[in-house]
Amino acid sequence: MDIGTVIGLIWGTVVFAIAIWLGGAGFMAYYDLPSVFIVFGGLVAVVVTKWPFGTTIGTFRASLKAMFFVPPTYSSTIEQMIVLAEKARRESIFALEKVEIADPFIKKACNLAADNRPPEVINSILTMDMDSSEERHKAVLTVLGAIAEDAPAMGMIGTLVGLVAMLQNLSDPSAIGPGMAVAILTTFYGAMIANIYAVPIQKKLEVRSNEEKKNTIIIITGILGIVAGENPRLIREKLESFLTPSERKKEGAEEEAPKKV
Amino acid sequence: MDIGTVIGLIWGTVVFAIAIWLGGAGFMAYYDLPSVFIVFGGLVAVVVTKWPFGTTIGTFRASLKAMFFVPPTYSSTIEQMIVLAEKARRESIFALEKVEIADPFIKKACNLAADNRPPEVINSILTMDMDSSEERHKAVLTVLGAIAEDAPAMGMIGTLVGLVAMLQNLSDPSAIGPGMAVAILTTFYGAMIANIYAVPIQKKLEVRSNEEKKNTIIIITGILGIVAGENPRLIREKLESFLTPSERKKEGAEEEAPKKV
Amino acid sequence: MDIGTVIGLIWGTVVFAIAIWLGGAGFMAYYDLPSVFIVFGGLVAVVVTKWPFGTTIGTFRASLKAMFFVPPTYSSTIEQMIVLAEKARRESIFALEKVEIADPFIKKACNLAADNRPPEVINSILTMDMDSSEERHKAVLTVLGAIAEDAPAMGMIGTLVGLVAMLQNLSDPSAIGPGMAVAILTTFYGAMIANIYAVPIQKKLEVRSNEEKKNTIIIITGILGIVAGENPRLIREKLESFLTPSERKKEGAEEEAPKKV
Amino acid sequence: MDIGTVIGLIWGTVVFAIAIWLGGAGFMAYYDLPSVFIVFGGLVAVVVTKWPFGTTIGTFRASLKAMFFVPPTYSSTIEQMIVLAEKARRESIFALEKVEIADPFIKKACNLAADNRPPEVINSILTMDMDSSEERHKAVLTVLGAIAEDAPAMGMIGTLVGLVAMLQNLSDPSAIGPGMAVAILTTFYGAMIANIYAVPIQKKLEVRSNEEKKNTIIIITGILGIVAGENPRLIREKLESFLTPSERKKEGAEEEAPKKV
Amino acid sequence: MDIGTVIGLIWGTVVFAIAIWLGGAGFMAYYDLPSVFIVFGGLVAVVVTKWPFGTTIGTFRASLKAMFFVPPTYSSTIEQMIVLAEKARRESIFALEKVEIADPFIKKACNLAADNRPPEVINSILTMDMDSSEERHKAVLTVLGAIAEDAPAMGMIGTLVGLVAMLQNLSDPSAIGPGMAVAILTTFYGAMIANIYAVPIQKKLEVRSNEEKKNTIIIITGILGIVAGENPRLIREKLESFLTPSERKKEGAEEEAPKKV
Repeated sequence: MDIGTVIGLIWGTVVFAIAIWLGGAGFMAYYDLPSVFIVFGGLVAVVVTKWPFGTTIGTFRASLKAMFFVPPTYSSTIEQMIVLAEKARRESIFALEKVEIADPFIKKACNLAADNRPPEVINSILTMDMDSSEERHKAVLTVLGAIAEDAPAMGMIGTLVGLVAMLQNLSDPSAIGPGMAVAILTTFYGAMIANIYAVPIQKKLEVRSNEEKKNTIIIITGILGIVAGENPRLIREKLESFLTPSERKKEGAEEEAPKKV
Repeated sequence: MDIGTVIGLIWGTVVFAIAIWLGGAGFMAYYDLPSVFIVFGGLVAVVVTKWPFGTTIGTFRASLKAMFFVPPTYSSTIEQMIVLAEKARRESIFALEKVEIADPFIKKACNLAADNRPPEVINSILTMDMDSSEERHKAVLTVLGAIAEDAPAMGMIGTLVGLVAMLQNLSDPSAIGPGMAVAILTTFYGAMIANIYAVPIQKKLEVRSNEEKKNTIIIITGILGIVAGENPRLIREKLESFLTPSERKKEGAEEEAPKKV
Repeated sequence: MDIGTVIGLIWGTVVFAIAIWLGGAGFMAYYDLPSVFIVFGGLVAVVVTKWPFGTTIGTFRASLKAMFFVPPTYSSTIEQMIVLAEKARRESIFALEKVEIADPFIKKACNLAADNRPPEVINSILTMDMDSSEERHKAVLTVLGAIAEDAPAMGMIGTLVGLVAMLQNLSDPSAIGPGMAVAILTTFYGAMIANIYAVPIQKKLEVRSNEEKKNTIIIITGILGIVAGENPRLIREKLESFLTPSERKKEGAEEEAPKKV
Repeated sequence: MDIGTVIGLIWGTVVFAIAIWLGGAGFMAYYDLPSVFIVFGGLVAVVVTKWPFGTTIGTFRASLKAMFFVPPTYSSTIEQMIVLAEKARRESIFALEKVEIADPFIKKACNLAADNRPPEVINSILTMDMDSSEERHKAVLTVLGAIAEDAPAMGMIGTLVGLVAMLQNLSDPSAIGPGMAVAILTTFYGAMIANIYAVPIQKKLEVRSNEEKKNTIIIITGILGIVAGENPRLIREKLESFLTPSERKKEGAEEEAPKKV
Repeated sequence: MDIGTVIGLIWGTVVFAIAIWLGGAGFMAYYDLPSVFIVFGGLVAVVVTKWPFGTTIGTFRASLKAMFFVPPTYSSTIEQMIVLAEKARRESIFALEKVEIADPFIKKACNLAADNRPPEVINSILTMDMDSSEERHKAVLTVLGAIAEDAPAMGMIGTLVGLVAMLQNLSDPSAIGPGMAVAILTTFYGAMIANIYAVPIQKKLEVRSNEEKKNTIIIITGILGIVAGENPRLIREKLESFLTPSERKKEGAEEEAPKKV
């Protein structure tokens, strides 16, 4: 559960809810079903035209998963790989099959190693999985980026529609204000979707996708070292070389506790 | 028939038709012949100035074809090539001439193979066809991209023309609203053309062009393998290596049924 | 005479003339000498500051020539070179001096060949001419691109000047409308210059410059083949290899007639 | 203490304070708690969603330090390294341990040299420190860049919220002006944050980060020369080759005085 | 004295002075001390925050010099170098010391040659001077580019300040117009600074910086040829190879007269 994303998105919504409440016009002044319909309906039309249907559905599912899933820290992944390496050394590589591991990717890597598959096969199967996952994330980033551009465009078109309607009927002065307010709402919805939701989620997904990829590379390197029967000490050195200096430092501080994992 | 593109474009139009209906000013408030004339007339002027006439016509014809044409899935193309490879193995390469195939590009490849042309000639003729097709698609993408930029520009100029006309005559207050409404219409038309039609169609064409190219490369690789008398098994392996991991997975699931094609 | 450019520019002007006429405020409402003076005067100031004076004049002369000049089709250029190659074969290379050719670049190439100059000298002299011409076109493209950016900027500054003047005198309500209309005119002029004239002309020049360069390369390759005494058949093959597949196809269809050129 | 940054930021604030005072509407007209809340609350929401929490806090701490810290001039760094080189020559490399140096990075380099560590180890440890520092600066630049984009976006959304509230209640004409003024305030806050604070600080940090990196490279090169027992003259020549010609000239002028450091 | 730059900048100012005069509101309507203060004060704040103080001063001095200084034409530089080469040939290389030359860079090159310095030293000293000069120009281009972006931003913030002040006091209708006019003035000042002054000067400086660099390279190549005792004819050929074909042609036409320089 990526608490930062959830808090950020809820807080962003709350900020503008409070702003509306402080504005004193009441929440209903900011709700207009036709305006909601224009922005969301238009967005759906554009997304459906731009991308094949299956892709769109698939990317949103992946997006939700990635949003709420926090990848393990690199140091905890390294510690897990070292524990496995020590177990494989003490007992045998076939012992990896019975290890209980929550991470399905490490589990898969262990099974492949315990099946005594050749290193090239293990490498290519796990790399394919990694590429496939990265590919799905990239598709989501592209769709979210397009939504961040299209939402304000739909909002602007909706405002033009509303303005034309309002301008047709200026005879009743008391209707001008509310008419214009409604016209502005689509622009407001479009700006909220783009700036409070689509762009920040896209940014966080990019960060997470990069972290997940690095984590996967650490696991693949680790399991290949285990299969090759390398010394756990050497494996640790190899895996830590993937970390940038600042990551290494932070982990140095935490190393005492998690080492017993 | 690319159902997604058709649904997306129709739905985009319907969304704003409903929005106009809900706005209550009536459809006629959004129709103004001079405004239509300004945006479309201006667009034609800009396109005719920018590109040679023949190119423009040709690209629009190609665009329509590409929009409504869904390229076959990679897996069905691979299966077709395997069926051909098996036929050429069992009977002889000359048997490819009499095979009934809907895809004109595969048909052409078969004829070239049955004519016993050398592999280099087959390769260069088919590659030329592929390049020529990609080239036409690229020209369409460029023209559509320019329309997506020019349509809002024409809309803005039209609105300036309308504003000047309206401002000249402020003595009749009841004419101000409708005058301004008409002035805004060109901006509305320009934004619709760019955001609901030109950009989404351009995006979909780009996706389709890439798919078609990949499909063509699969066919060329397949026919060259057939001509070289390679084992159908080997050909399948070669062709599947063009797929990304996620495409391969999806196809693994579908493989049972289409194999009998 | 590039009929497409001329029609496009005239049509673009006519579209907005009709739009103004339909607007009903009369043409004089869109003509304001000070506004014309601001946009054009400002543009001149910016262009004179940005580029040396001689360059600006030179580029505009080249621009006019390039706009109204349609380069010959590649196929007709190839046919001309083949005719020359056959003549040089049948008679002698010195016969090229007396050939009557409209294209001054081919004429120059023929004279150099007939003068019995070494191939390297012919190549370097003709390549220099080509580079010099391309260079001039690039300068024009840069200046036109800057005008397309500066014209709307001048229009906006002019509108600010007009708005300040209008706002100083709100006591006479009947003057507000026309005052604001005049203020908007500079923005209108700036947008017209940029979107209807500068950008489309720039685009067409880019297309023409690329065509001219390719034509020149065909001529240089041809004359070098002739000087080397190559077979006309071989020369044709060489020259046609410069064409993309789709150009070659189109030419295949036209080949019957023009071959007798 | 980077006096330029401090003066620039205070002066930027003072300019607009004076502008507000001259405007005559009083400072309170520019202060609206809900508007402040919208812009800052929205910014926090977006930043928290986009980046992991720890990173954000860490980058702001680094940002403050970098803003108020002026890196030493290259020439003073070079002089310090020469003094150290002469001391190491006259006494011994172990004498570097007892030297009193304010700069912690030079101090660390001296200690490593006095510990008689091999040059590769000294190099890799110091380079890691440099990379780690640069990395932290880059993260700050990214966050500041995002704030410079998000602040105006939050301001615009806030203005839309305010406009809708104001338009709902046009019956009291005397409330229209202040209502609109308040709506505009969020745009004003967003523009101030982006243009007066975020972008200029980002730019200065970029300059400082580059200067610090160059300084670090000079120190590393110097200490490696000292460890290798090179002649101080040669070390000076090496270090000065890192300077661009203009930096060298300026330093030539100052060389008389600081040489006795 | 770069007459084009001076005329362009004065003309740009005159155009808008005439526009203001034609507008009929009087020059004083466009002058507002607080508005001037906001735009210039804000610009100073931003520039001081972004760049170290010394750099800013230095770049503006260099900018003024570069603006009013027209680099000599390449052909006159080449003729000067040929005259020097012939003198060095007829008399001796030491004769270059007593030659009277206005250009300080050629003078420096002559002195270095007459001092009998080795070619590598001459080359590195002169190249350093060239790099140092280019570096200063680049800094100016960056600062001018930032001003072209910051001036409109300051103008917009100033307009927001003015609008809020005006909106607070709508009770006196006769004050609305002038209040709004004053608010718009900062935007007007910002647009003038960016589009009429900063961007065109930046562009011209870029052109001049490139010309000066090319000129310097011609001089360095020439003096190295002279030091190596090469034939003046060969030196001329070498130097002219730096010119593009069109520059060579123009110079061919002028060659008769200046040859006697």
